[in-house]
Amino acid sequence: MAHKVKLNESNSTRVSAEDLHRQLSMIFQAVETPENHADIAAKVLVSASVRGVDTHGVSQVIGYSEAIESGFFTVPQETTVITESETTALLSAGNGIGLVSAYEGMEIAIRKAQEYGLGMVSIRDGHHVGMVAYYAMMALEHDMIGMSMTTATPSVRPALGAKKMLGTNPIGFAAPAGAERDFVLDMATSTVAGGKVGLARRLGVNIPEGWALTTEGKPLTEPEEENDRWALNPLGNTREQGSHKGYGLAMMVDILCGVLSGGGFSRQLARGENMTCLMAVDIGRFRDIDDFKAMMDDMIGQLHSTPTLPGEEGVLVAGDPEAEATEDRLVNGVPVENGNYAGIKARALEVGTEVVI
Amino acid sequence: MAHKVKLNESNSTRVSAEDLHRQLSMIFQAVETPENHADIAAKVLVSASVRGVDTHGVSQVIGYSEAIESGFFTVPQETTVITESETTALLSAGNGIGLVSAYEGMEIAIRKAQEYGLGMVSIRDGHHVGMVAYYAMMALEHDMIGMSMTTATPSVRPALGAKKMLGTNPIGFAAPAGAERDFVLDMATSTVAGGKVGLARRLGVNIPEGWALTTEGKPLTEPEEENDRWALNPLGNTREQGSHKGYGLAMMVDILCGVLSGGGFSRQLARGENMTCLMAVDIGRFRDIDDFKAMMDDMIGQLHSTPTLPGEEGVLVAGDPEAEATEDRLVNGVPVENGNYAGIKARALEVGTEVVI
Repeated sequence: MAHKVKLNESNSTRVSAEDLHRQLSMIFQAVETPENHADIAAKVLVSASVRGVDTHGVSQVIGYSEAIESGFFTVPQETTVITESETTALLSAGNGIGLVSAYEGMEIAIRKAQEYGLGMVSIRDGHHVGMVAYYAMMALEHDMIGMSMTTATPSVRPALGAKKMLGTNPIGFAAPAGAERDFVLDMATSTVAGGKVGLARRLGVNIPEGWALTTEGKPLTEPEEENDRWALNPLGNTREQGSHKGYGLAMMVDILCGVLSGGGFSRQLARGENMTCLMAVDIGRFRDIDDFKAMMDDMIGQLHSTPTLPGEEGVLVAGDPEAEATEDRLVNGVPVENGNYAGIKARALEVGTEVVI
Repeated sequence: MAHKVKLNESNSTRVSAEDLHRQLSMIFQAVETPENHADIAAKVLVSASVRGVDTHGVSQVIGYSEAIESGFFTVPQETTVITESETTALLSAGNGIGLVSAYEGMEIAIRKAQEYGLGMVSIRDGHHVGMVAYYAMMALEHDMIGMSMTTATPSVRPALGAKKMLGTNPIGFAAPAGAERDFVLDMATSTVAGGKVGLARRLGVNIPEGWALTTEGKPLTEPEEENDRWALNPLGNTREQGSHKGYGLAMMVDILCGVLSGGGFSRQLARGENMTCLMAVDIGRFRDIDDFKAMMDDMIGQLHSTPTLPGEEGVLVAGDPEAEATEDRLVNGVPVENGNYAGIKARALEVGTEVVI
């Protein structure tokens, strides 16, 4: 099964997070990205790899730097405020690197929440923002709750429908704990993220029934290249099992990112155009932050000690697998799949910079 | 199948929404609820029935009025501000009728959004708020986006877990459209709302596999009365199909309602204690409201014209079934299931008021 494929010592090479950051920043700078933006982009991508979210990790530097060279991403970029109020801002990403505009957008949301309790930013004219929870997590060090969501190129059918109309439209949500790990949710609103299907295709393995349907409504287990003959299922899969819920959440994301920003809902956008919405909530406006964290610890502890279904090792909380990956990878290096490892090095040479990994 | 059971002319009696409102308000007042609060409670319950959400509709007046008489709900009630800032408020519902405190809370969130762009209210010491989308929908007439969520008595297992640890923790989200119907999402974060399982039990019909599991991990199709030998599945059902997503959303609701308010997450609460979170976003702070609504219409129109899966009549948008029920019921009367109809009348006599339905 595709979702059980793991990077290991034979299919990947371990590289330190610091070296990866340096390499990625150098590649971005070599294609004319200003140093501060190159550092942001490198930071977000390396963070995804450190957290084990390899589909959104360091290998993306190849495609992103190509998009910069082709002019699809505008670099140097400027994130501009189209309109703002005490708590809100409508931004244009200026068609730049999505990682940079989302990072700068979340900084604005946090600043507004510091001043007024809440902050919300909707970003138009944007591109792929990578691991969406990154931006929600930026709130944590400020003792805030963060939310982040983004649209994506249509690949998901609506409930009862047979055609790709919505992106996988993921939602990120982060809330700080005390002694326990922070709560970090990062979920596509489809049954499965698109990256897992692509991975299965590259590996030549089947996907489980329930992830995708043909336009004739038949379960699809050997997904073809992207085309209009099949679509991902919204979370819930079938009418009986709640497909209207995943579909409804995907529309919510399209509304907060695409319609609220005016940048367009996912079906209106060209491949690679993504709109984003970010929010910060200052916990201290509601209650003492230490009390909040203590109650988070209590909830997380109780969930961890829930009796499991037969055959399961333990109940996890959102963010646990990523925190475990982080603990390993910061110490032992970040495994980079061998094809990607070679690809990043080749890309460095191609753009005329040094190879440091 | 339980989810295909519909009220019809043989199992229900049509009553006008006005008469139902009058009857419910009279019952609430007869158990010492002040008139303004009785009117709010009646309005929310009748609205649910008008929208076809019968599980959260007029029949609830029986249990609510009993909870008032027993002292489980404190009436007359006062919704008090424990702490507030420009955009936020922490409220105590004072253990009163949940419908009233949530209504008053959403009024505060809207007022703050009018002044600062965003408003967010977390409510502790509360009870059942009925159809959660009601409060999100209150934002619509102010040209705002509304969000609402509430915790519930544990009935849902976490992903990989075998014990009820979370409520069905529903989420409401409403955004205004122009010529099209407004977008109104109202979804439990479990595969199915608890009310549908209760309905199946009362009707003696099986539920589909996927809605619930025994603690041994076996699919349950004939759910027993509430006990600890089974649990509802989180949306997604299985690890492979995304059960961590429904579970993660349920935790998000517990965090925003229970932990942020300090009232307690669902596992800490006694049956009937529910914490609530409400949010309002002033669309005009981001862009022109007419442009926003025109883009909503465009999105909704495109989704409605999506080719369907074989055998399906058409693609719906969240809120469509409820809007259709409303169109019928406001003209032809609200069908009240015959047992509930008799129950409401009996309850009116019991509390010493007139029967007007």
